[in-house]
Amino acid sequence: MSEQDFRPVSAFDSPRFAGVATFMRLPHVPLEKSDGVDIGLIGVPWDGGTTNRPGPRHGPRQIRDMSAMIRTYHHMLKIAPFEIINAADLGDTPVNPIDLLDGIKRIETYYHKVVAQGITPMTAGGDHTISLPILRAVGAKEPVAMIHFDAHSDLNDAYFGGNKITHGTPFRRAIEEGVLNPEKTIQIGLRGSVVDFEDRKFGEQHGVRMMDIEEAAALGPDKVMEEARALVGDDPVYVSFDIDCLDPAFAPGTGTPEIGGFTTREAQFMLRGLRGLNIIGADVVEVSPPFDPSGYTALAGANMMFELICVMAEKIAARKS
Amino acid sequence: MSEQDFRPVSAFDSPRFAGVATFMRLPHVPLEKSDGVDIGLIGVPWDGGTTNRPGPRHGPRQIRDMSAMIRTYHHMLKIAPFEIINAADLGDTPVNPIDLLDGIKRIETYYHKVVAQGITPMTAGGDHTISLPILRAVGAKEPVAMIHFDAHSDLNDAYFGGNKITHGTPFRRAIEEGVLNPEKTIQIGLRGSVVDFEDRKFGEQHGVRMMDIEEAAALGPDKVMEEARALVGDDPVYVSFDIDCLDPAFAPGTGTPEIGGFTTREAQFMLRGLRGLNIIGADVVEVSPPFDPSGYTALAGANMMFELICVMAEKIAARKS
Amino acid sequence: MSEQDFRPVSAFDSPRFAGVATFMRLPHVPLEKSDGVDIGLIGVPWDGGTTNRPGPRHGPRQIRDMSAMIRTYHHMLKIAPFEIINAADLGDTPVNPIDLLDGIKRIETYYHKVVAQGITPMTAGGDHTISLPILRAVGAKEPVAMIHFDAHSDLNDAYFGGNKITHGTPFRRAIEEGVLNPEKTIQIGLRGSVVDFEDRKFGEQHGVRMMDIEEAAALGPDKVMEEARALVGDDPVYVSFDIDCLDPAFAPGTGTPEIGGFTTREAQFMLRGLRGLNIIGADVVEVSPPFDPSGYTALAGANMMFELICVMAEKIAARKS
Amino acid sequence: MSEQDFRPVSAFDSPRFAGVATFMRLPHVPLEKSDGVDIGLIGVPWDGGTTNRPGPRHGPRQIRDMSAMIRTYHHMLKIAPFEIINAADLGDTPVNPIDLLDGIKRIETYYHKVVAQGITPMTAGGDHTISLPILRAVGAKEPVAMIHFDAHSDLNDAYFGGNKITHGTPFRRAIEEGVLNPEKTIQIGLRGSVVDFEDRKFGEQHGVRMMDIEEAAALGPDKVMEEARALVGDDPVYVSFDIDCLDPAFAPGTGTPEIGGFTTREAQFMLRGLRGLNIIGADVVEVSPPFDPSGYTALAGANMMFELICVMAEKIAARKS
Amino acid sequence: MSEQDFRPVSAFDSPRFAGVATFMRLPHVPLEKSDGVDIGLIGVPWDGGTTNRPGPRHGPRQIRDMSAMIRTYHHMLKIAPFEIINAADLGDTPVNPIDLLDGIKRIETYYHKVVAQGITPMTAGGDHTISLPILRAVGAKEPVAMIHFDAHSDLNDAYFGGNKITHGTPFRRAIEEGVLNPEKTIQIGLRGSVVDFEDRKFGEQHGVRMMDIEEAAALGPDKVMEEARALVGDDPVYVSFDIDCLDPAFAPGTGTPEIGGFTTREAQFMLRGLRGLNIIGADVVEVSPPFDPSGYTALAGANMMFELICVMAEKIAARKS
Amino acid sequence: MSEQDFRPVSAFDSPRFAGVATFMRLPHVPLEKSDGVDIGLIGVPWDGGTTNRPGPRHGPRQIRDMSAMIRTYHHMLKIAPFEIINAADLGDTPVNPIDLLDGIKRIETYYHKVVAQGITPMTAGGDHTISLPILRAVGAKEPVAMIHFDAHSDLNDAYFGGNKITHGTPFRRAIEEGVLNPEKTIQIGLRGSVVDFEDRKFGEQHGVRMMDIEEAAALGPDKVMEEARALVGDDPVYVSFDIDCLDPAFAPGTGTPEIGGFTTREAQFMLRGLRGLNIIGADVVEVSPPFDPSGYTALAGANMMFELICVMAEKIAARKS
Repeated sequence: MSEQDFRPVSAFDSPRFAGVATFMRLPHVPLEKSDGVDIGLIGVPWDGGTTNRPGPRHGPRQIRDMSAMIRTYHHMLKIAPFEIINAADLGDTPVNPIDLLDGIKRIETYYHKVVAQGITPMTAGGDHTISLPILRAVGAKEPVAMIHFDAHSDLNDAYFGGNKITHGTPFRRAIEEGVLNPEKTIQIGLRGSVVDFEDRKFGEQHGVRMMDIEEAAALGPDKVMEEARALVGDDPVYVSFDIDCLDPAFAPGTGTPEIGGFTTREAQFMLRGLRGLNIIGADVVEVSPPFDPSGYTALAGANMMFELICVMAEKIAARKS
Repeated sequence: MSEQDFRPVSAFDSPRFAGVATFMRLPHVPLEKSDGVDIGLIGVPWDGGTTNRPGPRHGPRQIRDMSAMIRTYHHMLKIAPFEIINAADLGDTPVNPIDLLDGIKRIETYYHKVVAQGITPMTAGGDHTISLPILRAVGAKEPVAMIHFDAHSDLNDAYFGGNKITHGTPFRRAIEEGVLNPEKTIQIGLRGSVVDFEDRKFGEQHGVRMMDIEEAAALGPDKVMEEARALVGDDPVYVSFDIDCLDPAFAPGTGTPEIGGFTTREAQFMLRGLRGLNIIGADVVEVSPPFDPSGYTALAGANMMFELICVMAEKIAARKS
Repeated sequence: MSEQDFRPVSAFDSPRFAGVATFMRLPHVPLEKSDGVDIGLIGVPWDGGTTNRPGPRHGPRQIRDMSAMIRTYHHMLKIAPFEIINAADLGDTPVNPIDLLDGIKRIETYYHKVVAQGITPMTAGGDHTISLPILRAVGAKEPVAMIHFDAHSDLNDAYFGGNKITHGTPFRRAIEEGVLNPEKTIQIGLRGSVVDFEDRKFGEQHGVRMMDIEEAAALGPDKVMEEARALVGDDPVYVSFDIDCLDPAFAPGTGTPEIGGFTTREAQFMLRGLRGLNIIGADVVEVSPPFDPSGYTALAGANMMFELICVMAEKIAARKS
Repeated sequence: MSEQDFRPVSAFDSPRFAGVATFMRLPHVPLEKSDGVDIGLIGVPWDGGTTNRPGPRHGPRQIRDMSAMIRTYHHMLKIAPFEIINAADLGDTPVNPIDLLDGIKRIETYYHKVVAQGITPMTAGGDHTISLPILRAVGAKEPVAMIHFDAHSDLNDAYFGGNKITHGTPFRRAIEEGVLNPEKTIQIGLRGSVVDFEDRKFGEQHGVRMMDIEEAAALGPDKVMEEARALVGDDPVYVSFDIDCLDPAFAPGTGTPEIGGFTTREAQFMLRGLRGLNIIGADVVEVSPPFDPSGYTALAGANMMFELICVMAEKIAARKS
Repeated sequence: MSEQDFRPVSAFDSPRFAGVATFMRLPHVPLEKSDGVDIGLIGVPWDGGTTNRPGPRHGPRQIRDMSAMIRTYHHMLKIAPFEIINAADLGDTPVNPIDLLDGIKRIETYYHKVVAQGITPMTAGGDHTISLPILRAVGAKEPVAMIHFDAHSDLNDAYFGGNKITHGTPFRRAIEEGVLNPEKTIQIGLRGSVVDFEDRKFGEQHGVRMMDIEEAAALGPDKVMEEARALVGDDPVYVSFDIDCLDPAFAPGTGTPEIGGFTTREAQFMLRGLRGLNIIGADVVEVSPPFDPSGYTALAGANMMFELICVMAEKIAARKS
Repeated sequence: MSEQDFRPVSAFDSPRFAGVATFMRLPHVPLEKSDGVDIGLIGVPWDGGTTNRPGPRHGPRQIRDMSAMIRTYHHMLKIAPFEIINAADLGDTPVNPIDLLDGIKRIETYYHKVVAQGITPMTAGGDHTISLPILRAVGAKEPVAMIHFDAHSDLNDAYFGGNKITHGTPFRRAIEEGVLNPEKTIQIGLRGSVVDFEDRKFGEQHGVRMMDIEEAAALGPDKVMEEARALVGDDPVYVSFDIDCLDPAFAPGTGTPEIGGFTTREAQFMLRGLRGLNIIGADVVEVSPPFDPSGYTALAGANMMFELICVMAEKIAARKS
């Protein structure tokens, strides 16, 4: 496949509403034909671990639709990611909407293949449970660092009398399983009333840096990211962006909204602070179209993916050259 | 508890938008305090068996809200159900949104208690999977007859490589388990493209009367119900009303809409045809608020519940007197 | 003012979305300058008598907006009303949203002027309370006949412990006050659960013909209107069209929706059956934009107004020639 | 490409919300690689000829999304179209949203290629203007017959002082250009107020059979289609389905809604009456997502496409065998 | 009643969408059985004083629904209010939607009972008129201080030619009646175009501290609240939170939105600044569900209630211990 | 016409939802009768140059509706514009929705008349293409300065293979045509991914000051406007306000939303910084109602118009006195 195949369709040639919707208007290339792909944009249409309002299973398709709004160059970073690396829409992973454990297994199996092919995964969820099978793949060899934007720590232990795998528990499991390094993990934007402080205690005991929105707002995006960069250093780092880190005014389409969140501008500034890090995968999760009459939550999600792709592409391109 | 306690709040005294929302503005009486209740209105906020678009977990709460529109007398049947029997909102059953088998078990356990207390359950779902645990309770002693309004037969075998318990399979399971009598089961309003005819074959082999919408439309509500009444006779009969038997114009808020469905008027006429039958339970399922910007799907659901309650109440009152 | 001034703007010259929105794109002519107007299209932006969900105060403006969809000729009746009589948008009546009795007085005062000027009023409500002050004006000399399309009889006595003026009581008051002739009144499309049968008894005792939707559906539009025409004969007749006579699928934007209602096609057929009657005024009420995400309730309302204007214009033109 | 490639993804294997959205979950095969395709599903994301409310440019993408609801077998016709012929999503035609004549030219050029490759086009619009360039291609050799479902005749002459190419004029142009045979053209479902009867006169003078909704409703779907079949006989016939032939309750998402329209059930019954005809192309147009909060207009459109594909596939398969 | 009864249902046991919706998932305890209740959560489903867009009558029910999102602990204040005091949902007050003065009287009567029982009322409106009858009860003995968050001063004199009781006049009336101490009243967030400066003059003449949003934004939440705390000192203080103090992006569901408002984060920071004050009652008003397609205005309202409850509970608990 | 005629209807006399909707509740005065008008509020219901999502053709009507929310005095500037100058709603310009060049010509012709009559135009669009014909009129004698709020530079060259007139190109054309002075043009709020930097290069080469949102956010509204005022000095200046300069959270109803935009508060602060400038015309464009379920984008647009009118009126009044 020639390099040209990995370029998105231009809005100067074909309007944005035209064509089968793929992430960023990139070519749709199934995993089994993905030779040469550097960054794979992958949908995980699954919300089997959602304890509250459902819907993220519809996230990937709406993010694809709204991502047609994204153009080629980043106006601040001056990066045109799709010209310096090869990116493609790999489609959606296999899922199982009614069988949690089978669903997780299908996702995990898929990501092991992605990793095996040397593709850096940029995932659109799906609920937050999916970060667990992804971490199992990207953290298989050694526990990875993580920069995590979220209203919730997702470090709970269990729900409903014993369910250990949910969208409120993935990172506790990942730490327990040794695929995530808690001492190189920072959680940014925590807020909202909490059931108890048990998650907080777990995090603190394991060395997770838990930063409330109040602290993040006081520091400002630049200082927040300075600390994050210092924490993870050159380690392979996973970036998990729960759309509910944004305020519901900016991202109404999510299952567990918490007021007082980040603006999209704050989030963009923080993601640009990832520049230069050794990102081995990223996700944007919890976009829930049924709770968003306007569709701009998916637009925010697509833009966050673009910010992430830019910083990942620059690093990958540097490594390749 | 005095009989008076079981009367709904009147819209002449307190406007319909006022007060904590319960089914039909009836008193909220937990199962453990439900002595004297004849008909229990029960919510099952669960959609763990949904293979397609989620949301019925939010059904009971929105049906409660819209049911405030219902008044006390049925203008055609001349029945005022809440004056002749005792009805109450029993609240919601325990559920588990992320564990299908545990969820089913909790629901089943609950309904065994309901049956044990001699309460006739009028359920608001929830996805159609929930009819299975209910049938296990109401059909525990002997397989029951069923009159089933639906766009889909829900007689499929398995999904996603082996999942046997879903909202597309409950009645196959119920027949296999011997809690549902297929030869006294009629399905009304079947339509829409099908994956294969395997479900149809299963139904026909077991003697289920499967009536397409085209046949039902040609017969008209009166003849349809004549046949249904003749089929079930005096047997204990369960009535399952999937809101997607209605056309999406009348019930947009559902996960698997099929065009060409019943109008609400046709549905009302059919439900009135149940008069005199020995109904031992009924459900209205698959109301999915996230897919209904107007809320009138829940309004239709609440009205169908009222139609069902009227015919059930008349029979129960006759039995008691 | 020349005759030409009363022509609507054509969609062949200026697109429908253009221009300040007036009813049917007619000129806006305040009552005090309305010399020569035969039919006055009047908004009553008021819902002070609403006992349930509010919103009809916003009806006139949205009906104006959607009425831009209406063109000049009626395709079946072959009437081009605005070419045979003079019609204008007279604007909205004065109202008072927080003072029921003052609101009613302002509306009544306005309609006395309309009647004094010899203008036939075609009103867009507003909740159904407004029919009372209108009837007080058009029925001032003698009680008028009425053809009334509605899910509800609006013949109740009082709400909330004594409130006699509400949107559920206007016609009882009008009968008591002698401005409405109950023996020449027919109500078409009654349905839905009722609080008690007190309204029904009042109507029947006074000779009102109360036709349930079930009877109307069985008869069909032609026979329904045959009876209505026979009942009112050549009497001056008022036509009141409550949008909730339509099914919520066809008119979701209303405060007290009742399922099982008329289709718009049935309603159109019935309104065409008014041809030749001596209509001295008409209203379309209870369009509630806040409960209609799509706006097509107002579209239905505008079309019903057009049907009414056509039959009124033909009669007025015949009288004038 | 093997025959197997043209099978849609099954909802038993992968849930409907998963995967890049293509028409009917068929493979996406660009025109230049479409060897072996019998029926090409084509999007025309264009509304440059819309004189009223815009939005059909977004139709193809939403129809793709909702068409995931369609399964493989037709439950009444007992046809599984994708098993008897090869169908594929050919993607969208080139368009130009801001240059009407260039837009038309791009579409026309594309369809000439489709016809040259022997593919029967099943088009999802787009506004109704697009039927003109399609007819120019499919009627290039000889004028074709047409069965046309619509609220509007689309036989107007010009808008806004001389614009001849609009969504209100395509069939007048097609008749003038000799690509459409007016004497073998039937229009079904006409209704709504009209600007003048000029379009009606043009149609009648050229022998077009123009059937108002009132006549169609009185006849019923079977007799309507009997007449349509008799009219077109064995001629190559084009089927144009404007979604606004449906009532706004069933298809709110369209730019020029007219109340009193067909139900989806009536429409399905009529489309099934096309069985056996020599259909050389079809379109479903005027689905306008921005005016449809629920998305079920696109669902109706997808179902109408499925009905059309079934009857076309049966005929093509018969011809091939 | 045991203390345990006043604990909300945990989301770890029963998912948030389950159960009859009460404020914060607290037990529903009617006023007449409210012995032992410290803070009563009360709905006032009434908007009879609304001069503009209606809807707050539906506020309490939607706030109840969305308040299921609230958990038990405040993550910054480290307060778990429901563990240190007894709170319950007291249901809705009696109201009269069509009779302003009767409505006000019913509300006032109710609050006199609340005060008599020693319950601190936390009210969910309802339009802003309701603060007047509440102040009449809580300020009956002596005029209270007030901290008032709002876009509007609500100090107008009269509407529509003499109506003195509206949602634009409550605090002028309260000052005139001597139940509100103007010199210990601060209004925060005033903005938007004004009809005249008459309200401003009244406020300033009586010593009300009127702070425009521009001043509040320049000061920042901390300094704003410093001033507010200094002003009210240890006086009994009422807190009135009009949801339209928030920007429409954060609270679209309100009748008189004004752009340029507070973010929810700013509002949370300000409410936390109430800590330690002697709050004798609080309200959150003007949540209007019909104007909020997403429901997050009610979510914001529920969160503001939680912030208020936390600071009130801490003080009450301290007083009790 | 007396001065009194140009006063808006007061919300103290007639509620805001009442009456035919005009801009700011001002009298509707067609251009040909506009003697004495200082500021003409003009709608341009046209989006023929939209390359992406359509809808601004519906902008003027919805802005009129929402502008009823605006009152008479500006609370910070202490200006009551309609008392110091004469303003009127001039209605909409002629447009042509399907013929781009004819549409532009109609608009341009209209504005030449506006300028000839000495009216300062305050325009509500419509898409951004319309600024070109307006500039051709207001810049006919000499190129004007411009202060331009937008997410996009709109300095592109051509779309879709040669289309030079679109909503992405107006200012490049205006510079080329010599009606806009690039060296006195500042663009504020630029952001979002870009197709290429060709527009940026064109702007910089011609001396346009292009300020990204990031720079504007760092400077703050005051310093931004200081620079803008210094740049344009006393030159006649046109102000163009594209609603998409606002963040989608504050203005979802627009065709090409870009996250990370201005808040309405920031925008208000900037517009107030225009005080004292020699503004010869202004527009608010790209409000697209079909993409705004809540209507508050039009509310923001109406408020921005009010801010602009205040500063324009003060200057005009000073000139006249």
